[in-house]
Amino acid sequence: MEQSLGERSLGDISKKMRNIDYCMMTTTTEDGALSSRPMSTNGSVDYDGNSYLFSSDKQELIRDLEKNPHVNLSFMGDKQLFVSVVGEATLIRDREEMKKHWQDRLEQWFEDGIDTPGIVMIHVRGERIKFWQNWDSGEIRLEV
Amino acid sequence: MEQSLGERSLGDISKKMRNIDYCMMTTTTEDGALSSRPMSTNGSVDYDGNSYLFSSDKQELIRDLEKNPHVNLSFMGDKQLFVSVVGEATLIRDREEMKKHWQDRLEQWFEDGIDTPGIVMIHVRGERIKFWQNWDSGEIRLEV
Repeated sequence: MEQSLGERSLGDISKKMRNIDYCMMTTTTEDGALSSRPMSTNGSVDYDGNSYLFSSDKQELIRDLEKNPHVNLSFMGDKQLFVSVVGEATLIRDREEMKKHWQDRLEQWFEDGIDTPGIVMIHVRGERIKFWQNWDSGEIRLEV
Repeated sequence: MEQSLGERSLGDISKKMRNIDYCMMTTTTEDGALSSRPMSTNGSVDYDGNSYLFSSDKQELIRDLEKNPHVNLSFMGDKQLFVSVVGEATLIRDREEMKKHWQDRLEQWFEDGIDTPGIVMIHVRGERIKFWQNWDSGEIRLEV
């Protein structure tokens, strides 16, 4: 399905990504395998190349990211929309920073909100963003 | 969203995956980044741990796989179903092998079917398969 990708603005893609609540985040495990898991996204917040995802220090995912910060976020939306975000992750444990990106819907997984013991925020800075929708496709490279 | 995963049979997951027509396939690029793209899956064929996906020798994806066969296939289905397949890819260019897994719906991308110049079949052998659906989740490890 890969076609040559035209240049687009981030706004074009951001608009398409509205209302996608989950993505699959892929990381490299210690033995070199590629592992993915669903992550709750920033929902209604307009995508600007940065994603803020919440996890727990107990998760293998955090071990993976400490060793190798390369990640991929895959989004699938309505009407055969697919988005791939190639980026790097930074782990953030600062409560003030977490507060800026916290959303109430995250409470279903983190009972005590940002005070949940072991909570970690993963900041993924997108470097290359590609989308495909039916026969249309595009790519954006962001300055890093 | 990662929870502790219970043991399941491949049949449980295979049933859930019926009618998912696309997955996102993640590979490692030359510079160590993680790249993904949508791939047409085997559709109605019951998933047995093997996926047969078609691509073209022109694609960067094939370069990636020649250097690093680790892949992840991420599936998202109805009713908040997410499936992660951790596996390794083998490239197959044998027409007789391709014939076994060819599906007519692939003709929208490969006009001349398995006679399309440069066509490559990617066999992904799943080693670890995880699924999540609402508060349920499970994992299967296959013998390799």
